[in-house]
Amino acid sequence: MKIETRKQEIVSAASILFKEKGYSAVTMRDLAKAMGIKAASLYNHIQSKQEILSTIIIELAEEFTTGMDKIATSRDSAIQKLENIIDLHIDVTLRNADGLASLNNDWMHLEEDNLQYFEKMREEYEDSFREIVRKGVDEGEIKSFNIEIIVFSTLSTLRTLYLWYPKQKNIDANILKHDMISVLLKGVV
Amino acid sequence: MKIETRKQEIVSAASILFKEKGYSAVTMRDLAKAMGIKAASLYNHIQSKQEILSTIIIELAEEFTTGMDKIATSRDSAIQKLENIIDLHIDVTLRNADGLASLNNDWMHLEEDNLQYFEKMREEYEDSFREIVRKGVDEGEIKSFNIEIIVFSTLSTLRTLYLWYPKQKNIDANILKHDMISVLLKGVV
Repeated sequence: MKIETRKQEIVSAASILFKEKGYSAVTMRDLAKAMGIKAASLYNHIQSKQEILSTIIIELAEEFTTGMDKIATSRDSAIQKLENIIDLHIDVTLRNADGLASLNNDWMHLEEDNLQYFEKMREEYEDSFREIVRKGVDEGEIKSFNIEIIVFSTLSTLRTLYLWYPKQKNIDANILKHDMISVLLKGVV
Repeated sequence: MKIETRKQEIVSAASILFKEKGYSAVTMRDLAKAMGIKAASLYNHIQSKQEILSTIIIELAEEFTTGMDKIATSRDSAIQKLENIIDLHIDVTLRNADGLASLNNDWMHLEEDNLQYFEKMREEYEDSFREIVRKGVDEGEIKSFNIEIIVFSTLSTLRTLYLWYPKQKNIDANILKHDMISVLLKGVV
């Protein structure tokens, strides 16, 4: 059980509201009401709704960036790197599925600098993924299919995990990791 | 080149606007403007924005339902059935990626009867998919992983194809079908 600061509590409560209603439809008044406090007292901890959104999304994007950098620069095989990427997505989803809803649905509401920073991180993440697959194909570790199709098939599943997994009652996290790595990399046939 | 009726032209133009701005943000006036006609003359062909939305979504959902019924009741192997499902999604995406954006983003704006009809079709579609996988696993044709993980891994990719494929310039439809079937069913390792 981690101890949350007041700011973290605000960010967690906002993640849930953003997921349910979308960033644009949520007001600071809604947030205060959901937390059972006065709207004015929110401003002792955060400056704006925009600050909350950027905290949620930029922290998550930096977590993916740090994780990917570690994976991409390691001396592991391409297959091991892909397994580690799947693990990374599952770990982040287990920890913060609500925040991932904001990242996926509301990233375009980030303002200027944060928007650019986010888009740069997302692009570099996809480039690193693509390079791992390309190198794996070049070295004969990964089958020689169209690289964009391999990247899309894997990322499209990992990126929507946050929507699906919270609704599953009977799938243990270890089974999820094991079976998803098997299905995505080794196939079902 | 197919000849479109006036109603089909309206539906096509609306699909593009709904994709760009979302159903709720589009007015009949926007639609008339995009088509270069007067708003009043739209009503010679359709009754409401809701009628346009339900035409887009229900036609697509019925197309998936008819396709799935044919696949599910055939005497093909489970693997062949899964290949046919992937083909079905690719064919519909190639033909109507704009409409699929409405189906994915705006289905919840359908009104009462159409909403229930859509949700029933979607549920039956997923059930048929699940049954094909379950039978394949039972008969040893498909590897024995968690069935929900197999269904989610495949459907999450097929359902977001409409977002990704229109941005790909260099992937021929036949390569898409071949490589996607291989990647989703046989894996990349």
